[in-house]
Amino acid sequence: MENWQQLGKAFNAYINEHPVQGELEGLYHPINYILRLGGKRIRPVLCLMANELFEGNKEEAMKAALAIEYFHNFSLIHDDIMDEAPLRRGQQTVHEKWNRDTAILSGDALFVKVYQQLEGLSATHLKTVLGVFNQTALEVCEGQQLDMDFEDIALDQLSLDRYTEMIRLKTAVLLGCSLKIGAIIANASVEDAENIYQFGLNLGIAFQIQDDYLDAFADTKDFGKQLGGDIIANKKTFLLLAAYQKASGKDREQLDFLLRQNIESKQKVEQMLALFQKLDIEKSARDSMQTYHSLALSALDRIDVTEEKKQPLLNLAESLLVRIN
Amino acid sequence: MENWQQLGKAFNAYINEHPVQGELEGLYHPINYILRLGGKRIRPVLCLMANELFEGNKEEAMKAALAIEYFHNFSLIHDDIMDEAPLRRGQQTVHEKWNRDTAILSGDALFVKVYQQLEGLSATHLKTVLGVFNQTALEVCEGQQLDMDFEDIALDQLSLDRYTEMIRLKTAVLLGCSLKIGAIIANASVEDAENIYQFGLNLGIAFQIQDDYLDAFADTKDFGKQLGGDIIANKKTFLLLAAYQKASGKDREQLDFLLRQNIESKQKVEQMLALFQKLDIEKSARDSMQTYHSLALSALDRIDVTEEKKQPLLNLAESLLVRIN
Repeated sequence: MENWQQLGKAFNAYINEHPVQGELEGLYHPINYILRLGGKRIRPVLCLMANELFEGNKEEAMKAALAIEYFHNFSLIHDDIMDEAPLRRGQQTVHEKWNRDTAILSGDALFVKVYQQLEGLSATHLKTVLGVFNQTALEVCEGQQLDMDFEDIALDQLSLDRYTEMIRLKTAVLLGCSLKIGAIIANASVEDAENIYQFGLNLGIAFQIQDDYLDAFADTKDFGKQLGGDIIANKKTFLLLAAYQKASGKDREQLDFLLRQNIESKQKVEQMLALFQKLDIEKSARDSMQTYHSLALSALDRIDVTEEKKQPLLNLAESLLVRIN
Repeated sequence: MENWQQLGKAFNAYINEHPVQGELEGLYHPINYILRLGGKRIRPVLCLMANELFEGNKEEAMKAALAIEYFHNFSLIHDDIMDEAPLRRGQQTVHEKWNRDTAILSGDALFVKVYQQLEGLSATHLKTVLGVFNQTALEVCEGQQLDMDFEDIALDQLSLDRYTEMIRLKTAVLLGCSLKIGAIIANASVEDAENIYQFGLNLGIAFQIQDDYLDAFADTKDFGKQLGGDIIANKKTFLLLAAYQKASGKDREQLDFLLRQNIESKQKVEQMLALFQKLDIEKSARDSMQTYHSLALSALDRIDVTEEKKQPLLNLAESLLVRIN
């Protein structure tokens, strides 16, 4: 089996050789712009890895991988409008470089291209893949809705369960889906397709919690950016929700006090970190990541192929989560 | 065969019995809101009529009809954001009643529901229907892009051909597609599926030109609204483009002068109508409508079924275009 980097290279070559074609520049230029911004190509590579695990047809898997990367970029274009994000991968977002209407419409057109890509799958796989993909696409919309709702809900109305549900829908399901589609194209059994879905889903949840964790607890030498950005912004992260759930009495009062400090203050970060330490939030986050990581590994373990073939996915799981262990 | 009104009733019953289900109110309430605003349901009824013409399975056609109506409403939600339209069918648009982000995201979710609906088609039809539908969906995006581009292009850079291309993509292709999908589901021959597509496409173009025509030349008793709304707004209609193409010398000067009058003036409308009369624009529009109407009828004529079965579609064509003949 090829490894992660090789498949990423192969995918990048493929996507560059297959730009979205069309005469209308106003519609297609923004699409090819975002597709060429690069990124880690995690989702298409997962699709290709799962397909290799079950020894499927590589060309067909590549078509599906491209569809998945189209979908991911469609969702980025529209999410960036909603989040009013100026930058994406260090470059201007589509709505910034062009305008809102161009971002809406070229996003829509890219969404159609997803399904035109899926049309290229064999009749044997098309219906099953469509079913998995549509379900996931709808969940991703729900995840974005939950994320937007989150901002308007008071902390005492939220819970860690609800937070996990949000990151599950917004991010993790598409990782599971990418793997599952690769498995379906390789004619994996229904059980194995579900196992690999669960591997990706749980890995995705662990990874998102890690993302929150690193903002507060990373080794700054490795992390490469200032700690506490989420704390300054009062972002409703796993850590803040865990702290709010655990804190009572004076701790809760201090938490509420810190959340009212809206300035970018080093003191706010330090005091919040001290409170996190007192409430043992680092351990809560580590435990939770460990739980989802273990769920991912045991799903991978249940898959009916040799350990050797699973090694690349195991390596991936370890490398994604290595920084905290 | 059932007639137009009966199929419309059957479709309305079906769509009301099948609301889009989902727990997240913020996402699904706007979707069911716009679906329940009603409208003429032209596209799903065309799908059902074509399916009856070729004696197909009614249940399967109903699923496709619902997918098509979902797609139409998805495009309305997003177009209304881009056009900053406050009203749709006399009610608040989704972005007005909720907000921009809700309109973007619930539009996206409704677009996924289109494909979830198509999943329900039989494996025999799925791939062909997807092919026709995806092609059309992309063209509808291109039509919206052309329409937006239109506003920024000077009149002397435009042509009637370009205008026709815009209305073909923005409106007419979806009418052709609706009929063609109904025909595919009824296992019509490739030629007949193409013929009925051409019937809908050309009827759609004729209908859009009629829409422009009525703004200037309708009998106000029948039309039920004030003439000249497009003239006041300097809207780049078929009539204005035809006039610009025909006018030279002093007529062109007067046209440019009238276009610079930005106030809502009765005089502007009267003078523009007089100029239209001088340039014989009414005839240009009638001729063009007649051309596309004839193309539609000859495509219908080529279809290999009895005249009797074609009668409902003939009646429809006559009733849609009756007001000008």
